[in-house]
Amino acid sequence: MSIRVVLVDPKHPGNIGAVARAMKNMGLTQLHLVRPKAFPDAEATARASGADDVLDSARVHEEFEDAIADCGLVIGTSARQRHLTFDLVEPRECAHLVAEAAQVGNVALVFGSEKYGLLNVELARCHRLVTIPTAGDYASLNLAMAVQVITYEILLATRPGAPVPPPPDVPFATGREMELLYEHFERVLEEVEFRDRTGGGQLMARIRRLFNRARLDQNEMNILRGILTAVQARRRVAGSKSQRGDG
Amino acid sequence: MSIRVVLVDPKHPGNIGAVARAMKNMGLTQLHLVRPKAFPDAEATARASGADDVLDSARVHEEFEDAIADCGLVIGTSARQRHLTFDLVEPRECAHLVAEAAQVGNVALVFGSEKYGLLNVELARCHRLVTIPTAGDYASLNLAMAVQVITYEILLATRPGAPVPPPPDVPFATGREMELLYEHFERVLEEVEFRDRTGGGQLMARIRRLFNRARLDQNEMNILRGILTAVQARRRVAGSKSQRGDG
Repeated sequence: MSIRVVLVDPKHPGNIGAVARAMKNMGLTQLHLVRPKAFPDAEATARASGADDVLDSARVHEEFEDAIADCGLVIGTSARQRHLTFDLVEPRECAHLVAEAAQVGNVALVFGSEKYGLLNVELARCHRLVTIPTAGDYASLNLAMAVQVITYEILLATRPGAPVPPPPDVPFATGREMELLYEHFERVLEEVEFRDRTGGGQLMARIRRLFNRARLDQNEMNILRGILTAVQARRRVAGSKSQRGDG
Repeated sequence: MSIRVVLVDPKHPGNIGAVARAMKNMGLTQLHLVRPKAFPDAEATARASGADDVLDSARVHEEFEDAIADCGLVIGTSARQRHLTFDLVEPRECAHLVAEAAQVGNVALVFGSEKYGLLNVELARCHRLVTIPTAGDYASLNLAMAVQVITYEILLATRPGAPVPPPPDVPFATGREMELLYEHFERVLEEVEFRDRTGGGQLMARIRRLFNRARLDQNEMNILRGILTAVQARRRVAGSKSQRGDG
């Protein structure tokens, strides 16, 4: 199964071990750690309680982008109250999205640090945000608990006998491809001197949010890249014509 | 909500704290501890992380029976492989049973010790066994993780907007009432000199299993108690007649 768990800035090695154990119980083995404060660590191994193989094969990254570069679906996690601009899904719906996408590409489940959760720069790379429903006034799941609940739902949605969603016709664009698209988009906006009217310079963030929500497949991404290239070419032609006209 | 979590013989105070936190996140506050190895304990408080109120109001018992005496539904927990003689339910189905029963009585979710789980004598007092599905070869959820998954499903089944199962017409018999029934049953079996043909003296265990599975309501329990009393009365009459006949 091409489903990974990505922990961004985990502070407590014990939590990393508990996450490994939670994952393995639900049949997941690919753990990616972005800037772990301490790893490997005896406390992680102790809490893994037999899931040492998950820890041993864990991959450590300096940059979040590298952990999701080859993923066609990136699911972020969040406590409910924040990020009202996102479409929040619950773990059950999330699991169906994951089951569908994992048939044609890699999927990342992304968890932020124990204290702060995911930062905006990381959220901007997620296609969906999942939130675990909690009782109103106390929503403070331990990191490994959140991993357990979400991976439990994924096991239910992917185990033998579970209804299999039809695979998408075309693979989704990967994290890396989406970054290239956004870079391209930003270059074009500069070239056409589009003025950011969002106030706080939030233009690219809004564009990211829109396209992440839409979850582009490879064909759609190629079409958009083609349009951007055409805009650039047209502008260069226009630019050289205009120069000739001026001259 | 009249739903409690019962931990039997918990060995690690950290787990008690983590359980309190998991419960509170899902809106449950009634924690019952049977023979905790260490409680209260600083490690429990540290891991509770804001769910101190659940710890503070926890009730400690010497006997498991006392923790479930007033409960109309007692759900035990188990790793899948054991106890093949039980009808195992999964957390989702369990949650619907709990949502139904909690409308008319108290419900206990019972978790055994970290190392051994529930013992047979405790299992014999459960109406249902719930098991959390796991990936085949590694089924070793941490105690608090198991509480988290099961209480998560209960939150989904009981939160506003969830389909409410119709309440049962008659409350279920409580744990204490069932114990009185079994004691009565056993006395009658002795009085009628019924021979245990189960081999290992498993007769009462089988009878318990049967009636626990059936989940008696108060009326049914009263009927059975009435039948048992009638058998005793009849036998005494027959006995005295037979004595008269002999005399």
